Amino acid sequence: MRIDMRSDTVTKPTEAMRKAMYEAEVGDDNPREDPTVLKLEEMAAERLGKEAAILVTSGTQGNQVAILSQTGRGDEIIVEAESHIVMLEGAAHAVLAGVQPRQVPGKRGVMNPDDVRAAIRPFIDPHYPKTAMICVENTHNFHGGCIVPQDNLKALREIAQEKGIRMHMDGARVFNAAIASGIPASEITQYVDTVQVCFTKGLGAPVGSILAGDAETINTARHWRKRLGGTLRQAGIVAAPMVVALNEMVDRLAEDHANAKFLAEGLANIEGIDIDASQIDTNMVYFKVSKEGMTEMDLLVACYHEGVLGGMLAPGSIRFVTHKDVNREEIQQALQVVSRLMKEKVTAS
Amino acid sequence: MRIDMRSDTVTKPTEAMRKAMYEAEVGDDNPREDPTVLKLEEMAAERLGKEAAILVTSGTQGNQVAILSQTGRGDEIIVEAESHIVMLEGAAHAVLAGVQPRQVPGKRGVMNPDDVRAAIRPFIDPHYPKTAMICVENTHNFHGGCIVPQDNLKALREIAQEKGIRMHMDGARVFNAAIASGIPASEITQYVDTVQVCFTKGLGAPVGSILAGDAETINTARHWRKRLGGTLRQAGIVAAPMVVALNEMVDRLAEDHANAKFLAEGLANIEGIDIDASQIDTNMVYFKVSKEGMTEMDLLVACYHEGVLGGMLAPGSIRFVTHKDVNREEIQQALQVVSRLMKEKVTAS
Amino acid sequence: MRIDMRSDTVTKPTEAMRKAMYEAEVGDDNPREDPTVLKLEEMAAERLGKEAAILVTSGTQGNQVAILSQTGRGDEIIVEAESHIVMLEGAAHAVLAGVQPRQVPGKRGVMNPDDVRAAIRPFIDPHYPKTAMICVENTHNFHGGCIVPQDNLKALREIAQEKGIRMHMDGARVFNAAIASGIPASEITQYVDTVQVCFTKGLGAPVGSILAGDAETINTARHWRKRLGGTLRQAGIVAAPMVVALNEMVDRLAEDHANAKFLAEGLANIEGIDIDASQIDTNMVYFKVSKEGMTEMDLLVACYHEGVLGGMLAPGSIRFVTHKDVNREEIQQALQVVSRLMKEKVTAS
Amino acid sequence: MRIDMRSDTVTKPTEAMRKAMYEAEVGDDNPREDPTVLKLEEMAAERLGKEAAILVTSGTQGNQVAILSQTGRGDEIIVEAESHIVMLEGAAHAVLAGVQPRQVPGKRGVMNPDDVRAAIRPFIDPHYPKTAMICVENTHNFHGGCIVPQDNLKALREIAQEKGIRMHMDGARVFNAAIASGIPASEITQYVDTVQVCFTKGLGAPVGSILAGDAETINTARHWRKRLGGTLRQAGIVAAPMVVALNEMVDRLAEDHANAKFLAEGLANIEGIDIDASQIDTNMVYFKVSKEGMTEMDLLVACYHEGVLGGMLAPGSIRFVTHKDVNREEIQQALQVVSRLMKEKVTAS
Repeated sequence: MRIDMRSDTVTKPTEAMRKAMYEAEVGDDNPREDPTVLKLEEMAAERLGKEAAILVTSGTQGNQVAILSQTGRGDEIIVEAESHIVMLEGAAHAVLAGVQPRQVPGKRGVMNPDDVRAAIRPFIDPHYPKTAMICVENTHNFHGGCIVPQDNLKALREIAQEKGIRMHMDGARVFNAAIASGIPASEITQYVDTVQVCFTKGLGAPVGSILAGDAETINTARHWRKRLGGTLRQAGIVAAPMVVALNEMVDRLAEDHANAKFLAEGLANIEGIDIDASQIDTNMVYFKVSKEGMTEMDLLVACYHEGVLGGMLAPGSIRFVTHKDVNREEIQQALQVVSRLMKEKVTAS
Repeated sequence: MRIDMRSDTVTKPTEAMRKAMYEAEVGDDNPREDPTVLKLEEMAAERLGKEAAILVTSGTQGNQVAILSQTGRGDEIIVEAESHIVMLEGAAHAVLAGVQPRQVPGKRGVMNPDDVRAAIRPFIDPHYPKTAMICVENTHNFHGGCIVPQDNLKALREIAQEKGIRMHMDGARVFNAAIASGIPASEITQYVDTVQVCFTKGLGAPVGSILAGDAETINTARHWRKRLGGTLRQAGIVAAPMVVALNEMVDRLAEDHANAKFLAEGLANIEGIDIDASQIDTNMVYFKVSKEGMTEMDLLVACYHEGVLGGMLAPGSIRFVTHKDVNREEIQQALQVVSRLMKEKVTAS
Repeated sequence: MRIDMRSDTVTKPTEAMRKAMYEAEVGDDNPREDPTVLKLEEMAAERLGKEAAILVTSGTQGNQVAILSQTGRGDEIIVEAESHIVMLEGAAHAVLAGVQPRQVPGKRGVMNPDDVRAAIRPFIDPHYPKTAMICVENTHNFHGGCIVPQDNLKALREIAQEKGIRMHMDGARVFNAAIASGIPASEITQYVDTVQVCFTKGLGAPVGSILAGDAETINTARHWRKRLGGTLRQAGIVAAPMVVALNEMVDRLAEDHANAKFLAEGLANIEGIDIDASQIDTNMVYFKVSKEGMTEMDLLVACYHEGVLGGMLAPGSIRFVTHKDVNREEIQQALQVVSRLMKEKVTAS
Repeated sequence: MRIDMRSDTVTKPTEAMRKAMYEAEVGDDNPREDPTVLKLEEMAAERLGKEAAILVTSGTQGNQVAILSQTGRGDEIIVEAESHIVMLEGAAHAVLAGVQPRQVPGKRGVMNPDDVRAAIRPFIDPHYPKTAMICVENTHNFHGGCIVPQDNLKALREIAQEKGIRMHMDGARVFNAAIASGIPASEITQYVDTVQVCFTKGLGAPVGSILAGDAETINTARHWRKRLGGTLRQAGIVAAPMVVALNEMVDRLAEDHANAKFLAEGLANIEGIDIDASQIDTNMVYFKVSKEGMTEMDLLVACYHEGVLGGMLAPGSIRFVTHKDVNREEIQQALQVVSRLMKEKVTAS
């Protein structure tokens, strides 16, 4: 048995995706001659309500290219303190773009607009960097796949416009937010200048993300993607499964969310597991172990040996992520494993 | 009347300093032939308990050179969330060194060692940057000139050593900490690999800071100072007043501290001024206005028009800094001005 | 008719490559669980005579990751003045790695070892950057696909070792050099620490390059690739056709070289075309127009309208590149077109 | 005896400069309250025919701030292949600004406008960086203190304007060019957007350079200078001797030029010294040793032991630089020393 809930990044391409790759019409995407890429970029831009889009090879590349294209060196960007950009991109923005991330702690991943406003610098004194961008993450990974409310996005957008600064969404899982909330993706992304969306997570494509925004910014992004080595040749083989993902894999995210809810509720019924199932917005389930003499690491390792794989982004909390390659039955099996291990009071040592 | 308490950076050189400049023996400091600089660097290293020291042209340059000399591009440094490095150096570390500042909120400028430990990355996964350095600021500017306790420094040092990372002190005002606490500077700096000390603040020199540390790091610092354009020619004219400062101006900081205490206690007696005078560690006095229909900005502007100059590093708080060019009598005059303006309930409009 | 000789980057994947993608066994390459990638990296390392290899998404990314992994910020690298790294990578090394490219003009792309030795800095004076790397390009694109002689590589290697600096080969087309010279690729790459090889040029894979070198450097490269956003998820779909390329497409480069020779000789027979066919080492054919009242741009544009596509990397010279998707018959057709256009003395206006 | 002709950077401040420092009216230059700095910046801007000027702590800082203020990250700047920016600034532009220096070899330091035009990139293809700036060095250090002719500057300026790119002059010794050619400095600098002038070389000030240009660029420069740590506090003590230098030390450069000519002619008369005295434009004298069994290094070391100090910027050539602290009599003594050592056929071993 292997029930892999470490992340939704482990999803494998579907038969339709493999077929799409096999048949993909391709060209050299350096001079923009790959028809499948052109089609994907157009579809994605439309779906996200933006003028233009660019294929990038990963979510990290999409976020970095967004930063590089909308900031100058020495600028400051405002980010949630535990966002992916701060925690999981190898400090790339600092070394690539030379920008400082001002870290505003959020509540369930949501920054208070007053805190954001207070963090914006008056660019008149050389002591201060120029605040160039506000970044939001939706859904927010470290805060449990939480959805950023529309009114929060709207409030931040108003601040950004008032101050003349850009707004970017790390929307790696924005379609999870859209499906879970019933709000079309383009209504969510209307508040930002640029949005990055991963196709390799819940959507199941093997490779690729999209950065969408206004035409001028996306054109600048082409220059930065080239420098990062992300401009591919016959990129249609990457784009083809992404087209399938966009057409066929978005709506089914609802299933992952239902599975996450089911998993959370099941966990809540197990003695020694600490979780509030009402906090599950999308496909992520974070929980703690509250049993004397037993730690989260104990349980995680024991689960691993039983073929139930989870993760630990930060000490003190286990993360299970539901996705298309884990079905309801497997969730039930996983619950049985956890239940049993908790009774046995396993330890990693 | 002009009582300038915006900062201790406004201090002007003493007659002894001017004389020292006039008479300074100089040479070209690029090939290390300026005898006054050599003397200053040796004195400063000894005073700070380090192997070597290098003259830099400002506190910002000292901090940046310390970062450049002890980190690699793409690394992460741990800094207090409202430290000078984050707030007032134009995001320089990001653009110059390509490092990300991980911002740990402190209490009165003091980071909890547990928080610091939790912020250090395991450098095994390419998602994470390498944690290369812990930075402390002593005394801490945004937190009211607070002194970082020795046991906190010791605890952070132990973590740094255990994890094999460097520790730097932005000790722009470390002599204020030393004089106020009665602990020799070298005992304070024993816990860090490098320390930057400003000579243009309470010490009154016109130009210059010192970065002290082990010989190898200071040698690397010479390369980075050159790139920043901080390597001077006949630098003895800058170093000479710094020698005077080190010899003559350290002990008298006690007077500034007494004046700050006196000022704080005076302010505490004025109706509508919100301040806890017991929190004044050194030469900084932060306070709020708690009177209906009146803001800090109202009082600050009104004071300005009366010749009493203060500052506002962040909205909602006025800062007065005591220094050698403001004496007890002027403090009393300032108190009278504030007292009167509070009664008059001034507004800026 | 469309005979596309703009570059060998326009080559499309073979049926075998498409099938390999369709069937590729995949996993998440972030935690190194994609079996096809692991297989490719092992095969490529062996073929290039190196300990380890890493999949990158383009030649630019491979070169940049090599630089990032083997230099420090502020270092200098020695490059041929018209190398790909200087001419066609968007100044990426400067912005990503913060290194200065010292440009040594070569003869047919080959730097004189004496010039390289003279360019190496004594890293004792802060005026000088540290020379960290020598880069060679083999075959050399701007210099006509020329092969860098083994004794030149050997001489440069000796200098690099004597001075304790690294040596990198931009071997985007190193297999062309190997096939044309009859020297195994691993004998060519023995002189360098790292080598980057493109699989999307003559080898015909849709996407992907390899960086090979010692295990420690390649491990560091994994961190830098992540920061550039080049670490993919189910990367096996990119790697699978690269495996096919390595197995099936290397030896057939001989055909491209024969076609290039044939094309060059044909061009040499056309009045008004200036070319020395004896200078064609591999698959690139550069030539000039020497007919009064007619420029290279005139001919290039006229050819384009006839469906014969070439390129112009620098004014004053047309480049035709032969590859698997242009056969001998098409070369003959192209020659007829050029011959006719030269007689007609076309102009672009 | 010590006749130091290693560089004109060894010049020591005059009595008038020391007095100016002693008496300097000062303030905090961070908020632009130092009257002496304000005066200097205004004087310098006027003298150089520019709207505004900013005090920087060195020539390197002036050049770097000029680059940082007029380029974006990933841009390219065109520089003469052996210019100070390439050779002697520690690759700072790469690490600070992230720009690539395209190195155009010049003749006596003068770039051919056709070569410059050919080096400018069409910023339409992401392969290419944007060409943002042309840099000239006047007088040119590595090429013997040569003056860049006005018609060359004019031709480059026309290209810059046509292409919409900036032009910067490393005019560390532009007053030498002005005095030697009889052309006012402002006529020389009319062709560039920004010019950096060193006051610590022939002009004899202990510390400081000026960057002059349009008001907007100089304002941006204030932000970059701050990040480099070059913004000083009571900077008037640095500015005061620079004011003296500008008032009193420019015209006397003629004396240094006459001494250089005298020295060159004297050297030309010594058997075994290879020099063309007609090539001495300003205060630099480069020459070679053409005597069997004797190298430049032999002579340089032997001279050093006799108290005659020269330098060697590149192997194969000795440099003597004349300046205010070496008079005619000392030049004669130096000639006698060289003459004797050549006869004795000294060797360093």
